[in-house]
Amino acid sequence: MKEKDFINTIKTVLNSKYIGDDCAYLEDLGIVVTQDSLVEDVHFKRCYITPYQLGWKSAMVNISDICASGAKPVYLTVSLSLPKDITTEFVEEFYKGLKDAAGNAQIVGGDITGSDRIFISVTAIGSSTGRNISSRKNARIGQKIIVSGQHGASAAGLKDLIAGKKDSKFIHKHLMPEARLEFSKKIAVTEKSAYAMMDTSDGLMDALSQIAENSKVMAEVDFTRIPYDKELEHYENYRDLIFYGGEDYELIASVDNPQDFTVIGEIKEGEGITILNLNGKTVHYTKEDIEKNLYNHFKEQ
Amino acid sequence: MKEKDFINTIKTVLNSKYIGDDCAYLEDLGIVVTQDSLVEDVHFKRCYITPYQLGWKSAMVNISDICASGAKPVYLTVSLSLPKDITTEFVEEFYKGLKDAAGNAQIVGGDITGSDRIFISVTAIGSSTGRNISSRKNARIGQKIIVSGQHGASAAGLKDLIAGKKDSKFIHKHLMPEARLEFSKKIAVTEKSAYAMMDTSDGLMDALSQIAENSKVMAEVDFTRIPYDKELEHYENYRDLIFYGGEDYELIASVDNPQDFTVIGEIKEGEGITILNLNGKTVHYTKEDIEKNLYNHFKEQ
Repeated sequence: MKEKDFINTIKTVLNSKYIGDDCAYLEDLGIVVTQDSLVEDVHFKRCYITPYQLGWKSAMVNISDICASGAKPVYLTVSLSLPKDITTEFVEEFYKGLKDAAGNAQIVGGDITGSDRIFISVTAIGSSTGRNISSRKNARIGQKIIVSGQHGASAAGLKDLIAGKKDSKFIHKHLMPEARLEFSKKIAVTEKSAYAMMDTSDGLMDALSQIAENSKVMAEVDFTRIPYDKELEHYENYRDLIFYGGEDYELIASVDNPQDFTVIGEIKEGEGITILNLNGKTVHYTKEDIEKNLYNHFKEQ
Repeated sequence: MKEKDFINTIKTVLNSKYIGDDCAYLEDLGIVVTQDSLVEDVHFKRCYITPYQLGWKSAMVNISDICASGAKPVYLTVSLSLPKDITTEFVEEFYKGLKDAAGNAQIVGGDITGSDRIFISVTAIGSSTGRNISSRKNARIGQKIIVSGQHGASAAGLKDLIAGKKDSKFIHKHLMPEARLEFSKKIAVTEKSAYAMMDTSDGLMDALSQIAENSKVMAEVDFTRIPYDKELEHYENYRDLIFYGGEDYELIASVDNPQDFTVIGEIKEGEGITILNLNGKTVHYTKEDIEKNLYNHFKEQ
């Protein structure tokens, strides 16, 4: 858990109000900004992902953070460090994937350097004009918890890849995630008061736990309402994929007005997460339980 | 020269007006943005630089790019990838250096991941409010060429480090560069028409050559007017340090109104660079000459 120590050290040195959400909201400029990296053999392996898919995913994980803030993704910059064996074709395919994933957002700069592994760092800028910007501190008692899409598919895809499968719908979800631009926009334009929104890059339970902890509330979720592909049930401990799998890049929000989105629960007084109807039981998880589960399930990655 | 092929490939795929200057000027948002990376054993070695100095330099090289655009540096984000042997003390010192170098600009986000080498990618955002933003395409015949500071010191510092020296004023210049905020501001606030400005991160000749090529003009410079520390003359081929050394992070600009800055030459009709009074001679360099010299002098790095 060294990363956590590092983050605490950084918070102490910087003493900044900005560190906390995935995006920093720079109100004076009317923008949000986020920067995330993908490192070869840490976040991806060249044997599992094509250059096009890698470009796509590098853009999409950052666009997803912008969507989680409620802002409109408008610009990206890209730093790329490449080993000597990388070809021009690799760079071409990578940038095609990046551009396709960026959609209406434009890639406007960055740099290329040498290195011994592929290292990708993308910065995304979102416009906050006309949007109500979220924060994980903003959940309030009585708000409904809503989600986009289906959960657990990306982790199932990773399992398929490791098991040697070449193609499956879950593998596609893992390699080519899609940020939820429309869900984000509808919430950010409609919600009039403060609301919380996160993406599920680190899993559904982690997002719920972050929102509950930072907002000092309890998140109560009905397991039977969480959307997932029924084929997931063929995987061992499939509920863990749904809860802790991560990399689905779906959105989860606590809002006053759930519109026609899927409601999976409600914000209540208390702390941690309560899951209703989990194997017919009600189960409560503290923040520590979730951290332990995250660590136990995924420490090998 | 693979990097150049990669950049051409990227330009072709993106077909973007933004790729060209070190900063992208996003007029609709009133900002400029730049992203640059420092890779261990490519851009720095841990044996030569302290964590504090590394943090300082990582911020400063990006702030220097913002200064070269004429914008005011306001926000930074930082992606850090760290090997397992990195301590909390390293992170603390690194962030202290980063914060001190940032000055009035705020560090507002980023991420930390694992890796086998240290990899740092910093994004800097500048505000264009009240500033005339530069472009290397903007030099015009009759403009004066001005520079900040002294040239060649950083490269001499690197030579000192490689020679085993522990401390010298040149080493300090190499490890702790200072971006030219005041020079930048005075030009960006005073110049009413289009002007060109670059930093000398890749050397004085490279900056002159980029400006000349992109503006389709010739840069004429009087060698005797280029400011440098006279102690440089003790170094072998010291003129190469001044011309090609790089990493001084001084600014060079072609402007209508040179104010009280050091004028080293003038923009003329033609192409390439003409150096007057170089060993008593006038020497003309084409773009190709400069690329060859850059390559020959520094290919080992």
